[in-house]
This record gives sequence, C-alpha cells and structure tokens, in this order.
Amino acid sequence: MKRLSVLGSTGSVGTQTMEVIRSNRDIYSLEAVAANSSIDVLEQQVREFRPKMAVVFDESKYAELKSRVGGLTEVAAGIEGLIAAATIAEADTVVSSIVGIAGLIPTYHAVINNKNIALANKETLVAGGRLIMSKAKEHNISILPVDSEHSAIFQSIGSNKKSQISKLILTASGGPFRTKTKEELQHVSLADALNHPNWKMGKKITVDSATLMNKGLEVIEARWLFDVPVEEIEVCVHPQSIIHSMVEFIDGSVIAQLGMPDMKLPIQYALTYPDRMAMSGEKLDLTKIGTLTFEKPDMEKFPCLRMAYDALKLGDSACIAVNGANEVAVDLFLNGKIGFTDIHRLIAAVLEKHVLINSPTLEEIIEIDKHARKMTIELFEKRCSSC
Amino acid sequence: MKRLSVLGSTGSVGTQTMEVIRSNRDIYSLEAVAANSSIDVLEQQVREFRPKMAVVFDESKYAELKSRVGGLTEVAAGIEGLIAAATIAEADTVVSSIVGIAGLIPTYHAVINNKNIALANKETLVAGGRLIMSKAKEHNISILPVDSEHSAIFQSIGSNKKSQISKLILTASGGPFRTKTKEELQHVSLADALNHPNWKMGKKITVDSATLMNKGLEVIEARWLFDVPVEEIEVCVHPQSIIHSMVEFIDGSVIAQLGMPDMKLPIQYALTYPDRMAMSGEKLDLTKIGTLTFEKPDMEKFPCLRMAYDALKLGDSACIAVNGANEVAVDLFLNGKIGFTDIHRLIAAVLEKHVLINSPTLEEIIEIDKHARKMTIELFEKRCSSC
Repeated sequence: MKRLSVLGSTGSVGTQTMEVIRSNRDIYSLEAVAANSSIDVLEQQVREFRPKMAVVFDESKYAELKSRVGGLTEVAAGIEGLIAAATIAEADTVVSSIVGIAGLIPTYHAVINNKNIALANKETLVAGGRLIMSKAKEHNISILPVDSEHSAIFQSIGSNKKSQISKLILTASGGPFRTKTKEELQHVSLADALNHPNWKMGKKITVDSATLMNKGLEVIEARWLFDVPVEEIEVCVHPQSIIHSMVEFIDGSVIAQLGMPDMKLPIQYALTYPDRMAMSGEKLDLTKIGTLTFEKPDMEKFPCLRMAYDALKLGDSACIAVNGANEVAVDLFLNGKIGFTDIHRLIAAVLEKHVLINSPTLEEIIEIDKHARKMTIELFEKRCSSC
Repeated sequence: MKRLSVLGSTGSVGTQTMEVIRSNRDIYSLEAVAANSSIDVLEQQVREFRPKMAVVFDESKYAELKSRVGGLTEVAAGIEGLIAAATIAEADTVVSSIVGIAGLIPTYHAVINNKNIALANKETLVAGGRLIMSKAKEHNISILPVDSEHSAIFQSIGSNKKSQISKLILTASGGPFRTKTKEELQHVSLADALNHPNWKMGKKITVDSATLMNKGLEVIEARWLFDVPVEEIEVCVHPQSIIHSMVEFIDGSVIAQLGMPDMKLPIQYALTYPDRMAMSGEKLDLTKIGTLTFEKPDMEKFPCLRMAYDALKLGDSACIAVNGANEVAVDLFLNGKIGFTDIHRLIAAVLEKHVLINSPTLEEIIEIDKHARKMTIELFEKRCSSC
C-alpha cells in the first residue's frame, strides 16, 4: 500500500493521478490533497477519496472550503497548509505537481521529512536542484520523475550504471510553432500558442512548449535528477512525441522509451516503480503511426532553449533567474500584455543583469526568484512606458 | 577476466568477436577457436591470440592445420573437436557462432559443462529451444543473445520482471525485396538476394533475410530465449534497421534499443554484460537519419515468416523441420539449383508432410533435422525430374 499526498491535486497531473488511484484503490490510499484555488474539485476529491487533509493555497478560499468539507477532513490553507500536506505523517509518498516555483517549498519539506517524491513540478529541480538532490541523498529518499521525458530517461537507464551513460537525449515535439519562421513568430497569437500538437497540458506548460523553454527547464531538471553534466544532455526535436526520450551508453547502444502521449503512464510508473501495472488506453502501434522524424532544435528561432543551457553553464542562480523571469513573462503573455517573442526578450534582459550566486540555500533561492520576477516586471513596465 | 572459446571463429560474428577481444586483451582471453574449414584464418587467429586449442570441423583439413600450428596449440577436428573446444576446461564462456544446425551439438555440450553461452547460432534454440533452455536452467548458466534483435530485447527488458512483458516486437529490415511484388519475386537473382540493405552478414543469413525466414527463426528463438508465448511475439518491418527491437510492457510503455547497424555492439554487450564498455565507431544521430518508418510484414509475399509462426504453433519438431528444410533450400538457391520462391515452396512441402514429435531429445532433434533435409532433397529431385 502506497500512502499518497498529492500537491496540486486539481491540476492536469493531479487529476490524472486521481484516475490512477481510482483504478487501483487496493494499493493506493490518498492521505492529503492540496490545490491552489479550485475548491470545487478539491471538495469532490475529498468526498470521493476521504483524505485526512485538504489544503487550499489561496487563503481567501479557506473559509468556504472549511464550510464545505470541514466535517469530513482537516482543512488548511496557505504555504503552511501546503507544508502540512507535504509532511503529513500518514503519507509515505508525495506527488509534487504544483505548477511553478510554488512547488519548491512544500517539496523541500517533504524531502527533509523522509517522504519519497513523485516529481511533476519542474521548478523544484530547476531552481533547487543542488539543494534538493543533496537533501534527498541525506534523507535516503527517492525522487521519481513524473514528467514523460524524465520518466522515459529513468526507464531507459533501468539497471545500467550511471558511469556508463554517455548522453541523455530529451525529445521535444517542437511545439505548435516548429515550422514557423522567425518573422512569423513575431505575430503568433495566444490561441496559437495554446494549441499544442500532441500533449494536453496546463496553460503555463503549453506556452513553455511553444517557446521551447519547457525543454530548457527539462534539460536543467535532467542535469540534477540524473547527475549528468550539461555537455551530455541533448535535445532532439521529434514532432510525433512517440519516443519520449533516450539514453546513449558508452558502447553506443541507445535505449529509448516509447508510448502513446498519455501522462497517466509516467504518473502510474512513478507510483508503481519498480513494478508495472496494467493500464487501459490505446497501445502504441508503430505500423499505424508509420513514420517518426527527428531534427535538431533551432536555438536561434527559439532562444529560450539556448538561454536555459546558458543558465545551466553559468551556475545555479542563473537557472533560478531564468525560471522566475519566464514565469512572469509567460503570465504577461497569457494575460495579453506582451507578444510571444517578448517572452524570450524579457528573459534575456533579466539574465544579462543577473549576479551569480552558487549553491544557494532555500531562503536564497526564494530571494533570487523574487528578485528575478521583480526585475522582469520592471523591465516590462519600462518597455511599456517607452512604447 | 572472461575466458572464451569461440565456435565459428572465422565467420562474420567470429571475426568481429576477435576484434572485440583484440581491443580488450586485458579482460578477455581466447582459450579455443573452432571453424568449419577456413584454416588460413584459423592459423592467423592461433598466431595472434595463442589459444590452447584450434579445431577445424572439416576433417580433411586436419593434417594441414596440424602441420601449420601444431607446435603452437592443440589441434583437433570433426564434431569431437567442436565438442572439445566447447567444453575446454580453461574457458568459462562459449561464443556459439557456428552457422546452421551444426552449432547445436557443441552448444549443448557447452551448456551441460556449465559454460555460459554468448549465442549467435540461431538453430541452437530454433531446433533445440526446449532442451537447451531446460539444461541451461539445470546447470544455472546464462545464455546471452548476440543477435542484434535479441540483444535489443534483452537490453530493453533490463531489470523489468518477465511477468510485466506484454509483447516482444522484433524489427525486420524487410530485406532487399521489401518493395518487390509477388510476381517480381519469381525472377530475382542470387546477386539481388545477397545485396542486403543494412547489415553485412554471411550468405546463408543474408538469403534468410531476403525471404524473411531469418525473422521467422528469430521469432522461434525469442520464444525460447525469453520464455514468451508465440502470441506475444510480433514482427514490425523497419527498413532503416535503427531500432533493433522493442518490448512492450503491461502498462503500455515500450522500451527499445537503437544503434547504428554494427554487430560488434551486441557481440561486445554479450561479453561485458551487465557492464558496458566504450566502443569506437559511428554513434547514432537520429537528426542525421531524419526518418524512421514502420510497416506490417507481408506474410503472403514472404510465406517463410508465416511458416515459422505456423511451426512454432504446431510444436517443437515442426520448427526443426522448417529449419532443416530451409537450410537445404537456401543451399540449393546459393548453388543456383532453384529460384528464390522455390525456397518457400520446398519448405511448405516439407512442413505439410511433417509428423509432429514434441519435447525431442538431442538425438531425436538430429534425426528430425536429417529427415527434413532428406525430404527436401527428395522433393527437389522429384520436382527437377518432372521439369
């Protein structure tokens, strides 16, 4: 029996985690759910799974949630609530699927409270990679990837020794703008950016897929999760999203994980590892798909990917700054305040002014992130006032 | 230090095994070499590697080999010689790379003398699968595949449990006649058949690739090597031969092994497993290759593949008969005695008359094989006399 606390339970990964739990009630129990603000879904989850605790991050929703499910479960709110859900005694495994930097703090507390982590939140490792991985080692807990690419790499490494890995190859769909010219990218709309060819995901990640920042963040995440130097991490554009990622070994052998694009598979695998469990859904038939194609990513057209590599080479805090700037810029784009290519321009401007700090503490990470966000807003406002 | 005896040391797999040993003299020693008749190459191998024993199967070459290298190593001949090389006390691992049914007897003796096997000889498992695998279990030795497809499956299974495999997917290049019509196949030449698009192999296997019997024999081999029922073994035509084979698991995840087509990789892996060793040679770059394609095999156009499946479903001795008939038919084709499509006609005629025997002993296997060969020759002669 795995006893789960799901942080971000009402989002895309969270609700698919609920599907996995629903199909396997005999082996999973849900001990806590936590969400940003969707209390309607939280209420349903409480009624269905009867967790010991339900948390809403948005404190203004606390009273309403309490009145709806206070008789069924313990209710909490805010960052303290998230930490309480992440460290609840009854859970052995925390599914960390809050979107954005907000996922870092509760995940950190889960790790130092000896919970195993099923990790969907990229920012935990993008911003806190060195810290989190050292704490994970110290507390002897496992961090299993839920992201399809990192799950693919994890599955491809299998029982091979780390010393025998020569390269991680992350595949990227290339997003909805893969075939657009640099000029055309100036004029794409929000609706275009949200129209991902293969994966159904949240809005933030979908925009990140369109800029390729998503892949850049995954490169940073992979560097920490698999302890592989940046020089040994490659990105390969593979528009069909069938090969989810690959690992090359020192003898030239490449192991890849393939499947239909369905997040439930990596979610379930992170929860069943080292076992596998039958799963319904369409099975991969390569003879139906017919053709798989591969190309190099165009980092000139998609500078976000290049900037993520640059940040990783620069040092820890540069990754935090890129991530923070990206979150703000994507938010501005989602709110119609800036154009698509302004996203990378804002990030580049923040990265240029960044002052490097290596091996930051949790508090420093949060400071660096805040500072980068503030700087992004300021740059946006300055630019706006001049236009 | 792995101490090797290489049976079939002068053939395609044998000479590539020598290259692997040559690059890694510190971890491999060569204790015995055995070949069918190429004593020139045998002599070179003795002079270079100084094995304790050199064997030529063709007894008429014994005196000549003895006169050339008798002062350097023990020389033996015939089937007794092969068995002596397969069971030599100094070796812990036997590379079984004799082509054809002739590989079965020495491999059997290696197994019952507790040698681990690096298996390139298909017929060992095609004809003796049940017997060999049960002896391997009894003697607690490992049989590691050298064939690129089975090595790919072995690598893809990794540390996953056998009970979680839902399907083995063997890839096939489709051979040189993939795009030919059934009508055109009536008129293809020997030279055409020997012109394999991707792999450089011996003549027998190259013709087997053209008829797809090679893939059929691999299906039978996979059934025994991985203990998976025939219903769970699929063939997928993949003309680029980059994905060497795949395994589907019960959760829908598919793991594949990819690489440039180079037999040295699976040969080396069988010798380094569970480790890997750096290997020179071109590395896979999917962005250079660009496109991978997949299609269903056409069993009507290539009945040899269907007959292999049929034989596997019928029972053990049917596989032996198909294999024996195929060896004779391919030999007749290589000698210009029959046309390309006569190969499958002869095999079909033998299979039709076959009387089933299940769980045959080694002696029965040899008898069934001999009988199938005799029948194939008789059918050929009868057909010839009527034409």
